[in-house]
Amino acid sequence: MIVQKYKDMLKGKSVIRQLSEFAAARGKEIGYENVFDFSLGNPSVPVPQELTDIMMDLLQNLDPMELHGYSQSLGIPSVREQVAQSLNERFGMQYTGNHIFMTTGAAGAIAHAIRCVTEPGDEILTFAPYFPEYQPYVNLSGALLKVVPANVEDFQINFDAFEEMLTEKVMAVLINTPNNPSGVVYTAETIRKLADIMTAKAKAYGHDIFLISDEPYREIAFAGVTVPYPSAFYDNSLSCYSFSKSLSLPGERIGYIAVNPACTDAEYITNMCAQISRGTGHNCPPSMIQLAVARALDLTADLSVYETNMKILYKELTDLGFSCVKPGGTFYMFPKALEEDAVAFCQKAKKYDLILVPSDTFGVPGYFRMAYCIATEKVERSLAAFRDFVQTEYPRI
Amino acid sequence: MIVQKYKDMLKGKSVIRQLSEFAAARGKEIGYENVFDFSLGNPSVPVPQELTDIMMDLLQNLDPMELHGYSQSLGIPSVREQVAQSLNERFGMQYTGNHIFMTTGAAGAIAHAIRCVTEPGDEILTFAPYFPEYQPYVNLSGALLKVVPANVEDFQINFDAFEEMLTEKVMAVLINTPNNPSGVVYTAETIRKLADIMTAKAKAYGHDIFLISDEPYREIAFAGVTVPYPSAFYDNSLSCYSFSKSLSLPGERIGYIAVNPACTDAEYITNMCAQISRGTGHNCPPSMIQLAVARALDLTADLSVYETNMKILYKELTDLGFSCVKPGGTFYMFPKALEEDAVAFCQKAKKYDLILVPSDTFGVPGYFRMAYCIATEKVERSLAAFRDFVQTEYPRI
Repeated sequence: MIVQKYKDMLKGKSVIRQLSEFAAARGKEIGYENVFDFSLGNPSVPVPQELTDIMMDLLQNLDPMELHGYSQSLGIPSVREQVAQSLNERFGMQYTGNHIFMTTGAAGAIAHAIRCVTEPGDEILTFAPYFPEYQPYVNLSGALLKVVPANVEDFQINFDAFEEMLTEKVMAVLINTPNNPSGVVYTAETIRKLADIMTAKAKAYGHDIFLISDEPYREIAFAGVTVPYPSAFYDNSLSCYSFSKSLSLPGERIGYIAVNPACTDAEYITNMCAQISRGTGHNCPPSMIQLAVARALDLTADLSVYETNMKILYKELTDLGFSCVKPGGTFYMFPKALEEDAVAFCQKAKKYDLILVPSDTFGVPGYFRMAYCIATEKVERSLAAFRDFVQTEYPRI
Repeated sequence: MIVQKYKDMLKGKSVIRQLSEFAAARGKEIGYENVFDFSLGNPSVPVPQELTDIMMDLLQNLDPMELHGYSQSLGIPSVREQVAQSLNERFGMQYTGNHIFMTTGAAGAIAHAIRCVTEPGDEILTFAPYFPEYQPYVNLSGALLKVVPANVEDFQINFDAFEEMLTEKVMAVLINTPNNPSGVVYTAETIRKLADIMTAKAKAYGHDIFLISDEPYREIAFAGVTVPYPSAFYDNSLSCYSFSKSLSLPGERIGYIAVNPACTDAEYITNMCAQISRGTGHNCPPSMIQLAVARALDLTADLSVYETNMKILYKELTDLGFSCVKPGGTFYMFPKALEEDAVAFCQKAKKYDLILVPSDTFGVPGYFRMAYCIATEKVERSLAAFRDFVQTEYPRI
């Protein structure tokens, strides 16, 4: 018999996907260039030409048996070593290649990290607003995701709520900075306080509490913002990375886990990940893209468009009366809706061909997410639609 | 705390890996060209040049946003459609793109198939000799793998044992033809009888019993051997494929599940697979290699070397007194050892720099596996070592 649990999941269609499909359908009516589609977090700039050149070079000059051969299940040793060195140089860490486990993107990294440090029934805490896919990521592993309510003032951490929810059942805390959907970067102060609380509670409970840090937006930081590296603040930390956003290759599914060398049983964890892979069917990540990104660790796509877009939208929206925490990075922002019901707000916005995602699935009611990874000229054309929308639907603001 | 289950798995080092490491170490002493390493099932011929050209063309001529963009979680629609058409033409099936789910290799395909049709605690049957990785593939999903004893006469199916073990708890049967490690291809008669028994038992028990067919060696068939397509014989069938062996790109992790359109809930299964992916962290398989293999569905690497090697070894070994079922495909053979204890036999072979894998982990005692995916000249040079080994260690044979 087919398994009902997965069949049942098909009934609940993702809000983001529904909006994206609406945008596509509307695009067929009026031209997609006239639909201001802020629904999807897909990079909007191409991979750097250097990366294409690297791949061409690999295809032309590397022995195909080496290029397309099985990677070891932990990843190609030279690639793991290069990733470790790059992280050490940038963040003052002490990784060796043995602390790096190559994965199929951040989703793969998180899937392994969760299984390393939680048994079915254990709890994992995350913080609103949060990436909705964390629910299936965690819950289908058998662990339980609990969401700490947002600190809506600045989308740093609501520490009172956190301390209350950090019970003995919690084996891991999952953070995402720079954050999807808020665009906020956790400050060093925030991470230090988080680490202090986790350290104290772990001691009190007599068991480790791991920090799983999801960092696909680490490279997308705006002027004046430094992104603190969470693993530098807490020993029991697993840093989960994807090259999807920084190099604009989300389809190539390449990322890694970096295991803090100071964490409990650090010498076992990457090898445990390889055991987990045998069960989940990952096995080794694709070899050619491993070799390619290892040569591109200092490269990014031209990420400047995201800051340009953010500035335009932040100014216009705050001028129009929106309240919004200013993003420090990513390609998202998370303004407050102009009425309590974000779903109703976003429904009205559709009349103006503005595709905005209501905040409810991110764990905070009354906000909306905008993914501004779209062309700047389209962002500029959207401003008139925003003005029309607000003035018509919310004339008293 | 890190999870003991995965930590414990690190103690049991794979026999194949140990032998492969021994071969590498011995190679450092005497030159790897002098170690007759039959341990690993890694393709020994390069990808076809046409595939390299296809990848170069994709890199040079396709919009990088399309080339490296997110695939839909079920796979790229055009790729799924092309795979379906190719299978229909070759095997007379009625697949559409909706029946194809793209995966990261056969391991990924099997991981999804298992989770689609079994709940934790359900049983899955497979047949000795079998690929030892089926143990973690199945057991880490929560289902239980039970192994039907071998039919050692011809390594087709031991149907008496199968009928006895096909109890009400069994929700799926996992087959692998052409077979690793025996090289044997199930005949149409074998598959028909298997299907008949499964149909009768499913009816008797009032629940579906799925056939999960692992087919990475489908394209490696020797002269005069046709490989029957198992899904053509049984409605509730999920065909799991990998391009690793046929195109010699095991590192690129690309394969698929083909869901028989006549199976129960066929319209749900690929979509269920996408839900399973959310939990296991697969998400979409790599985009560039999806697009590349879709253009290479009629291509293979030059697989003829495997048949050449098989013929040389089969003749020499049978001349030396080994009994061996003649392989119909793959790059494996599975002769009977010259003493009851296959581990002792393979240990002695190491003295002659012959690296052979004892059969115990394949579920049959007293045999050994040879992976002859190595250069033919090395196969030829190994013959003297075999003669020396047999004449010295087993002089009475």
